[in-house]
Amino acid sequence: MNERRAAAGLPDCGDELSSGEFLIAPSPDDPDLTRQVSGIDHEGRRTTAYVVAERPLTIFLNDQEVVTAMTVGDHPKLLAVGYLVNQAMLQGDDTLSSVEYDEESEVVVVRTERATDYEEMMRHRIRTSGCAVGTVFGQVMENFEDVTLAPDVRIRTSTLYTLSRKITLQPSLYLKSGAIHGCALCEGERVLLYVEDVGRHNAADKIAGWLWLNRVDASRMLLYTTGRLTSEMVIKTVQMRIPALVSRSGFTAQGVELAEQANLTLVGRVRGRRFLALAGTQRLILDVDPSEVPDDPPASIRKGAAP
Amino acid sequence: MNERRAAAGLPDCGDELSSGEFLIAPSPDDPDLTRQVSGIDHEGRRTTAYVVAERPLTIFLNDQEVVTAMTVGDHPKLLAVGYLVNQAMLQGDDTLSSVEYDEESEVVVVRTERATDYEEMMRHRIRTSGCAVGTVFGQVMENFEDVTLAPDVRIRTSTLYTLSRKITLQPSLYLKSGAIHGCALCEGERVLLYVEDVGRHNAADKIAGWLWLNRVDASRMLLYTTGRLTSEMVIKTVQMRIPALVSRSGFTAQGVELAEQANLTLVGRVRGRRFLALAGTQRLILDVDPSEVPDDPPASIRKGAAP
Repeated sequence: MNERRAAAGLPDCGDELSSGEFLIAPSPDDPDLTRQVSGIDHEGRRTTAYVVAERPLTIFLNDQEVVTAMTVGDHPKLLAVGYLVNQAMLQGDDTLSSVEYDEESEVVVVRTERATDYEEMMRHRIRTSGCAVGTVFGQVMENFEDVTLAPDVRIRTSTLYTLSRKITLQPSLYLKSGAIHGCALCEGERVLLYVEDVGRHNAADKIAGWLWLNRVDASRMLLYTTGRLTSEMVIKTVQMRIPALVSRSGFTAQGVELAEQANLTLVGRVRGRRFLALAGTQRLILDVDPSEVPDDPPASIRKGAAP
Repeated sequence: MNERRAAAGLPDCGDELSSGEFLIAPSPDDPDLTRQVSGIDHEGRRTTAYVVAERPLTIFLNDQEVVTAMTVGDHPKLLAVGYLVNQAMLQGDDTLSSVEYDEESEVVVVRTERATDYEEMMRHRIRTSGCAVGTVFGQVMENFEDVTLAPDVRIRTSTLYTLSRKITLQPSLYLKSGAIHGCALCEGERVLLYVEDVGRHNAADKIAGWLWLNRVDASRMLLYTTGRLTSEMVIKTVQMRIPALVSRSGFTAQGVELAEQANLTLVGRVRGRRFLALAGTQRLILDVDPSEVPDDPPASIRKGAAP
């Protein structure tokens, strides 16, 4: 049993890690995550639809309130820990003593044995620098510049197509209600985790939380997101040591620039057989004739729901 | 000349307000807003693509640093003022003395004649409540509950279809580079403003900034967004006194609930002839046979760019 999972009060995931797929999958049947509402459609007919939950979650690090995030509500502990890790507020040498989630008050408290560097920073800086956000960002960028992503990892386009199809066809809140982002952690052709959230950053943070709590090395894995390839997504991916980030969506200039700087493989606009790779292209092996790749299956047609 | 525009150093918009369309339109040809990058496509061919800019903008209210937003970079003054208005940090009775934008340092400083309530709050609360965010949110929700949206406004579906078509066909960063959100302020069948930003909230804030600086009453207007209909978008729309919010994208449960509470007309998943209205449906007049409405024109096909 890993001591971080134990401290967080999460069940051990045992041998699953070495063999399983979808260790965490979306939960479209969880009644807490969607609500059925009624309205009218374009022909004036009364109709019902599922819409996705969106609720506040306040994250504390020891006695310091850090942030209130709007989240769909599942995996609150993974989200809280991952948020703190991705903000460099929780570092590798911090020892977790507990993670408590109170459903009623919608609060997660992450406790460490000693006060963290972040709390020290907050004490010194909060009066002058707008919540120490600048300082924290500085630490994040310092970490970013220190990371070397595995140069020898190769990604076959056949793998990209397989992963994209698996994720698209997996039952999800996205297919049920739309208006939600998904993020998947993949190893070869296996999808290890597929998590969803109303915020794309929350979905990535849940994955970071899982990696940190399980002490999993993601340096040969791949991250898939339904969201845009922005600077923030690139920074989070690099902080997780993941060498490739793939998305159905498009790019920002800053996302591309940071990916180049970190030697991150950045592939966007993945739809059916098409994609566009704008950084780290030397990792790609085009091992399949794209004309043999079928277009996106109908199940992936969006619910008018730009994720 | 309106004194707020004068204080902000913005040109007068003269008579345009009463007659014009696209008083502000997207600027796909502005070289500062996109960058051409090269990469490879799914067939391994070298190719180039435009990607959208994403840069930090730090907003000050008098001497208080408030936030750093990631933005595409146009209309920084509208964004700063609108952000402060939508956060209830700048209120109707505050007198603007200047708005200064420094391009090099990427900072906007909004100055008022007296210290604002927000600054007072910050002074009292910052040490205990995580940057006074809770306090500010309380003020926003108090304002939200005080708003009565015009009950007698009616929205014809023919108008919805016309607006959707106009916005979709207008040359934009979205059509050029994808990965960007748009927000449009409409009056009847006229599109007054169509602004874009990498963050959907920034786009809404630019509109709020324009409304506040021009002292324009939006209580019979309509807001169109490419983004999801979340609690935050609903709150911003209600704060602008706009009685209808329309989107290509889907809904969150919290967005629907707040729209019901405020009697806001909420229409989502607008694609071609289809839509779904989940709140305030009594304002809709179905005056057109949807089978006569053409499907979305090809120009609106996304660049793999979920906005």
